[in-house]
Amino acid sequence: MTHWIGFLHDGQRGFGRLDGERIEVCEGDLFGEPTPTGAVLPLSEVSVDLPCHPSKMIALWNNFGALMEKQELSRPEAPLFLIKPANTYRPSGAVVAVPEAAGRAFYEGELGIVIGRVPGKPARDLTEEEAADHIFGFTCVNDVTSAAILKADASFAQWTRSKGLDGFGPFGPVIATGLDPETLTVRTLVNGRERQNFPISDMLIPAPRLVALLSQGMTLEPGDVIACGTSVGSGPTPKGATVEVVIEGIGTLTNRFE
Amino acid sequence: MTHWIGFLHDGQRGFGRLDGERIEVCEGDLFGEPTPTGAVLPLSEVSVDLPCHPSKMIALWNNFGALMEKQELSRPEAPLFLIKPANTYRPSGAVVAVPEAAGRAFYEGELGIVIGRVPGKPARDLTEEEAADHIFGFTCVNDVTSAAILKADASFAQWTRSKGLDGFGPFGPVIATGLDPETLTVRTLVNGRERQNFPISDMLIPAPRLVALLSQGMTLEPGDVIACGTSVGSGPTPKGATVEVVIEGIGTLTNRFE
Repeated sequence: MTHWIGFLHDGQRGFGRLDGERIEVCEGDLFGEPTPTGAVLPLSEVSVDLPCHPSKMIALWNNFGALMEKQELSRPEAPLFLIKPANTYRPSGAVVAVPEAAGRAFYEGELGIVIGRVPGKPARDLTEEEAADHIFGFTCVNDVTSAAILKADASFAQWTRSKGLDGFGPFGPVIATGLDPETLTVRTLVNGRERQNFPISDMLIPAPRLVALLSQGMTLEPGDVIACGTSVGSGPTPKGATVEVVIEGIGTLTNRFE
Repeated sequence: MTHWIGFLHDGQRGFGRLDGERIEVCEGDLFGEPTPTGAVLPLSEVSVDLPCHPSKMIALWNNFGALMEKQELSRPEAPLFLIKPANTYRPSGAVVAVPEAAGRAFYEGELGIVIGRVPGKPARDLTEEEAADHIFGFTCVNDVTSAAILKADASFAQWTRSKGLDGFGPFGPVIATGLDPETLTVRTLVNGRERQNFPISDMLIPAPRLVALLSQGMTLEPGDVIACGTSVGSGPTPKGATVEVVIEGIGTLTNRFE
């Protein structure tokens, strides 16, 4: 298992393998053949940056059994999703300023699937078996949502705008490789108090199948993130609160909301 | 008025000013201070490429009076939109392969607003007056849509997936600067036959106001494209058909659909 981290050090962007409190600095393409430079940096001396730069973040709706039952929804036949634009991305540690008009921002702890690169094979029209090879690793996502904006127009649910504001898609702190997603649990803590705790095994469409279905007609690029949807327990984030999305085996995504 | 074009020549990406059939090649940042290299290329010797590389393409719904009336919709209070991901972008001249599962792809001719760069001022929380300065220019967009996918799930309109397939967001051929959008007309031709012809002056939210409203809480980046929505006359694209989106003053976006 490797934990890939992005960082800022002396104003330069870099990435490497996180080993406890040390970063083994690498160069090259994270999704190709990243090469250690030989340099090692203490985690305490860098700012944590995004672990990758997605061309798109795909955010799923209605993808957990418990939430589907609670909301009396039907099991979807295809992945139901929207796209969170790049202006939503923030690394762990960043402060998210919620605009007045958004009202309270709802936290939604989620597992993020990070797409990798398979030489000679674009991630399109994949079988479930092929899809597994295109999964590079996993990260933590807070799929922040403005309930006020989502429901403001009766004729058109504003999924994109309510989830697309600046800072509404923090993810990280790392991408962890070599994990079995079915064993993972997502926990969301607000000011240290647990508000969500749900198993990834309750996903209606498991990770490889999800990637295969999303790739039908739509090419997934290396570094693209699929936010797998949240389950029960999402709620409004109080002003000034710190939200942590914790996935054992990956790490803790921490952001304060103002 | 300048027509900015992107191109591929000898395997290299480049951009420049299009003057009739000649390209005055430039280097540097298109949205900063592009500098002529002194080279001139005949248009016939290059492949037309995307005129810019958006971090997001924002696609509007219900933004024309005539279509609103026809569909008996209400006038929206805020821009209603989704995001078309980068895998949808194609230049003029590209062939779009429509997947079997998408059924017939509907053509939707649209005006695209291209965001520029104002030194020292991010495109966020803009007033209408400021927004005008952030509009770099205009392009033609075909906001291709799979009606079959859009309506496949009763609980969640698949706006993003139906408009997010590979090649479903061609735009170009150029970005035209120095135009008054209120004077423009969008025409869509299918195999040379006119199917759409509508004035931009019928837009429910005019360009500068649209940019100002979209920038509330959401930063627009240089090169981002806002597809302003279509009006009446959209319809299915027959297999093998060539679709042209023509905006006098900008140019003609041409794509064949297979």
